Amino acid sequence: MAAPRITEVRLTPILISDAPLLNVAGVHQPYAPRLVVELITETGTAGFGETYGDSAYLELAEKLAPRLVGMPVDAVNAICRVGKDPGGLRVIDPNPDASGYRGLLTTEKQRLSVISAFEGAALDAFGKHLGVPVYDLLGGKVRDRVEYSGYLFYKWGQHPASSPNAPHDSWGEAIDPDGVVALARKFHDYGGFRSFKLKGGAFPAEEEVGAIKALRGAFPDHPLRLDPNGAWSLETSLRVARELTGVVEYLEDPTFRLDDMAEVHRQTGMTLATNMIVTATHEIKPAFDADAVQVVLSDHHFWGGLLATHDLAAICAAYGKGISMHSNTHLGISLATMTHVAATVPELRYACDTHYPWQAREDILTEPITFADGCVELSGKPGLGVEVDTDAVARLHERYVKMPHMRNRDDIAAMRAAHPDYRRPTMPKY
Amino acid sequence: MAAPRITEVRLTPILISDAPLLNVAGVHQPYAPRLVVELITETGTAGFGETYGDSAYLELAEKLAPRLVGMPVDAVNAICRVGKDPGGLRVIDPNPDASGYRGLLTTEKQRLSVISAFEGAALDAFGKHLGVPVYDLLGGKVRDRVEYSGYLFYKWGQHPASSPNAPHDSWGEAIDPDGVVALARKFHDYGGFRSFKLKGGAFPAEEEVGAIKALRGAFPDHPLRLDPNGAWSLETSLRVARELTGVVEYLEDPTFRLDDMAEVHRQTGMTLATNMIVTATHEIKPAFDADAVQVVLSDHHFWGGLLATHDLAAICAAYGKGISMHSNTHLGISLATMTHVAATVPELRYACDTHYPWQAREDILTEPITFADGCVELSGKPGLGVEVDTDAVARLHERYVKMPHMRNRDDIAAMRAAHPDYRRPTMPKY
Repeated sequence: MAAPRITEVRLTPILISDAPLLNVAGVHQPYAPRLVVELITETGTAGFGETYGDSAYLELAEKLAPRLVGMPVDAVNAICRVGKDPGGLRVIDPNPDASGYRGLLTTEKQRLSVISAFEGAALDAFGKHLGVPVYDLLGGKVRDRVEYSGYLFYKWGQHPASSPNAPHDSWGEAIDPDGVVALARKFHDYGGFRSFKLKGGAFPAEEEVGAIKALRGAFPDHPLRLDPNGAWSLETSLRVARELTGVVEYLEDPTFRLDDMAEVHRQTGMTLATNMIVTATHEIKPAFDADAVQVVLSDHHFWGGLLATHDLAAICAAYGKGISMHSNTHLGISLATMTHVAATVPELRYACDTHYPWQAREDILTEPITFADGCVELSGKPGLGVEVDTDAVARLHERYVKMPHMRNRDDIAAMRAAHPDYRRPTMPKY
Repeated sequence: MAAPRITEVRLTPILISDAPLLNVAGVHQPYAPRLVVELITETGTAGFGETYGDSAYLELAEKLAPRLVGMPVDAVNAICRVGKDPGGLRVIDPNPDASGYRGLLTTEKQRLSVISAFEGAALDAFGKHLGVPVYDLLGGKVRDRVEYSGYLFYKWGQHPASSPNAPHDSWGEAIDPDGVVALARKFHDYGGFRSFKLKGGAFPAEEEVGAIKALRGAFPDHPLRLDPNGAWSLETSLRVARELTGVVEYLEDPTFRLDDMAEVHRQTGMTLATNMIVTATHEIKPAFDADAVQVVLSDHHFWGGLLATHDLAAICAAYGKGISMHSNTHLGISLATMTHVAATVPELRYACDTHYPWQAREDILTEPITFADGCVELSGKPGLGVEVDTDAVARLHERYVKMPHMRNRDDIAAMRAAHPDYRRPTMPKY
């Protein structure tokens, strides 16, 4: 019994509401682009995937999608190679990009991000076809629920008045330690999170250290993390690492150069995590050789899917490195996908990151995913186990059509809506 | 729809006929022990696995098998962890073992070898349950057939007369270049192999170099490999590497020390493959750091299964190392299992090794697996796609019961049947 073939790949770019979250580059736009991939098989089964929706990704997806038509839906390893260029990586932007903090932007990274949604959709469709959850197509689960950390940001109360039609934000302002603690309490009420990550790089390091210490006071037993997205100099990083030793479980990308990361670890012993210096396969060896990182934050979107995430976990295990999961602004298809793969990785020791609480109210699933004790449960339903509300997708696509100026995430431009003279920060910022 | 649970695990040790194949330690016994694992689910589906059958493996399998009962058959990642000791590795024999050449013998290696058969049987059963081939549970195939090399040995015409009830051998004698070439022709007739591996270490290096050159003359376009299982000193290895540059596609384990392997590669540029210095996860980093090996020969039996083989392939790819497959004496369940996983590894660039031609006549499948142009085709049938002849298993088990002295492979003891004064060679042998 051959697996059904793919007959159609539907691509729907959407805009999702986002909160005014601060980071090293600027602030999140009121709306963020995502791409919904719907893959239809000859037996009528639909599988869904989700990935970055910025124009370059959409254009590449439109170029690659026709190459999936006719492929059997079980050929996931082959789907992962669609569009693979043996000539290697072409660097698109030599600066770390301002739309997701994933290191250099390369053609291969864009391909992998698109492929991840194709692969996820294929696994969803194949799982539904067979009547098994996606995790069964990855060797089966080793846990029944996956833990996520509460992902805190410094944030404004509302988007700047100059942002037209900005969505209302109900999470409140958080621009100092008290605000961050108050936000953490809301997150705790919302999802019972048992660990917190604070996105830093928005304010001087000492202020952010203060926020972490306030969180430690308010939540004495919660593992904590601080991630300034490489904003700090080596000196600042060393100072913070010493000050937060025993307070955080790890620092994430304190500084942006590999050698400086290695130096911070060498001098302080602080565990360092990254989603910036190890973002592609060819970056693994140099970073591991230098011991510049101790925990790699995988992301099935930019590593190229669930099989690739497995591969990364195996590489980390062989080299004595920890693994956890990075997240960017996303909806429930991505969260379900993350949860399935996380359930199959034995080596996962840290709660994964997710932006989902910031987007849950506007999810495109018929039932939003919920957290209990910070965890998402595996339902055992076929495929990804979630149902996509196609009306909701259509509504968010309509928004995409109406707002061409929001189709490419740009945290620097968003900041200029509040501060017209704002410029991309020079690194190190602090 | 939850996956069916495992209700029974049947373990059947068997003895299979083997030819008088020479190697660094001695000669193959007339019979080799293997273990057939049959895993039954609550819906009556049977899955099969095959692994080493020596007493230590059988005893461990008997200890671990009850722990599978009650587990869902889809929990492959969990099955792979059954019996995993977080305390790590206990070295059983500090000498490289004389029963398969897989480096130090450790408790963890024995566990992984047993687990590989459990995992294979679970994948076979789950695939049959779902109606999909095992490769579909590993991300799908990237090729429709898997290429194997013709695995040549120096060999005697028959087992020593002092070996009671030794099986008849029809392959003929091969103790010099002409004999090796004649054997290669038989292999070519049998399976159309498009590359050859010669097991060396049996005779002085210069003789074996002569055999390789004779093969090159007889088969000008066939990639060739020579594997003395670490028999050579550094000096001999350097000499052979220089002499065979441009003649072999790689040398396999010319010498047994990691530093010497690195030195051979450094001085000669010869591509070196191994199944002796990289045989477990913790050995990867030191060998790669030293560039002591350029191709890792995976073996799903001793790396712990098909998921683990995938992991190894990913690690090799990230570190710029090639991957292929090692083989030990085995039957068709193992060959089918190897073929499924090999079909799913994009990075596979070399023909895999298999001993199957030496065992095919006495396989326990209802239809022996055949080679065309050296390749085994993926049938697309559910599970491993092979049918086990339980009567044949019973016959070989009866032999196992009747021949207690053959239950542990010992190539040194087998050599003593011909040469009573024979002792384990001191390394380096040449």
